[in-house]
Amino acid sequence: MKLLEERIRKDGVVKEGNILKVDSFLNHQMDVALFNAMGEEWKRLFADRPINKILTIEASGIAIAAIVAQHFNVPVVFAKKAQSVNLDGEMYTTKIESFTHKRTYDVIVSKKFLSSEDHILVIDDFLANGCAVDGLIDLIQSAGATVEGVGIAIEKGFQTGGKVLRDKGIRVESLAIIESMDASTGEIVFREQ
Amino acid sequence: MKLLEERIRKDGVVKEGNILKVDSFLNHQMDVALFNAMGEEWKRLFADRPINKILTIEASGIAIAAIVAQHFNVPVVFAKKAQSVNLDGEMYTTKIESFTHKRTYDVIVSKKFLSSEDHILVIDDFLANGCAVDGLIDLIQSAGATVEGVGIAIEKGFQTGGKVLRDKGIRVESLAIIESMDASTGEIVFREQ
Repeated sequence: MKLLEERIRKDGVVKEGNILKVDSFLNHQMDVALFNAMGEEWKRLFADRPINKILTIEASGIAIAAIVAQHFNVPVVFAKKAQSVNLDGEMYTTKIESFTHKRTYDVIVSKKFLSSEDHILVIDDFLANGCAVDGLIDLIQSAGATVEGVGIAIEKGFQTGGKVLRDKGIRVESLAIIESMDASTGEIVFREQ
Repeated sequence: MKLLEERIRKDGVVKEGNILKVDSFLNHQMDVALFNAMGEEWKRLFADRPINKILTIEASGIAIAAIVAQHFNVPVVFAKKAQSVNLDGEMYTTKIESFTHKRTYDVIVSKKFLSSEDHILVIDDFLANGCAVDGLIDLIQSAGATVEGVGIAIEKGFQTGGKVLRDKGIRVESLAIIESMDASTGEIVFREQ
């Protein structure tokens, strides 16, 4: 998606350790007009899929997923890290390793909001090693629901998450895929799509 | 706001300990059409204020704030709990006590995204004792920015947060204010607005 690639080139900052900071428009300060353009694009890409719900994970996926949900006219559910005392009743649980935060989270979704009737689009801001998406798919499969696809804003194409998901037959639509990036020059190379 | 009050009566569940569960439409599964109606209402209520940015806190405020930001045509920033290794550089910090989670969080916003030029609308899902909003106002004041108002979906009017904020002269617009609720009968009494 050219609009997103151009925005990453303009406002993204490449840091040592394969870190791309996009906190000025994607995951700290957030440009909801851009998210609406992304929502339109995913709606076009997944037009053939009977999506009735969007699933994401807190925190940085939530805003994108909420804006995108408008384009599908469906509710959005976010998986929660750790247990809240307010979140009683039965829930699906999984564990997700976060490289960013260097820890493992228990992640939960109430059983009320995922069922075998559901056809889910997973939305997240980044895909690198794929741990977060793997965890969300595990929750969906625990419910007997159908994974219709995965929509990612920025995929780090030089990490294995995207390939592993696609090799499993899961449809992954990443709006920008980074082949390589260089912290010393700031250069970012995107995969042709 | 009648639409929100009706939805709370229909789908909210009153639990012992003054807990109101609205996780089927507000803060776990989320009804973005409802959030758009809330955004319209806040835009009407704050039409006279020169708001150029919306500030919320992860996680359950994010979706509401993102949808509402569309109605003001401004970016949204969410304050983050604890420190991410990706969030380098200078930041404003405060501490927020969570009664729900029975712990205190360090909460941060990058200095890049709050400045003395900013006129901020704070958005959150709940207002009870006011700790979260107090923390967000502390961050705004650290930046020398202006608090134009606070928009809350559901205020627990029998707790002191709203009164304390209004007594300080802060404009608080809660779309539903609960005067009392009864876990044994499920009855919810809203304040007339």
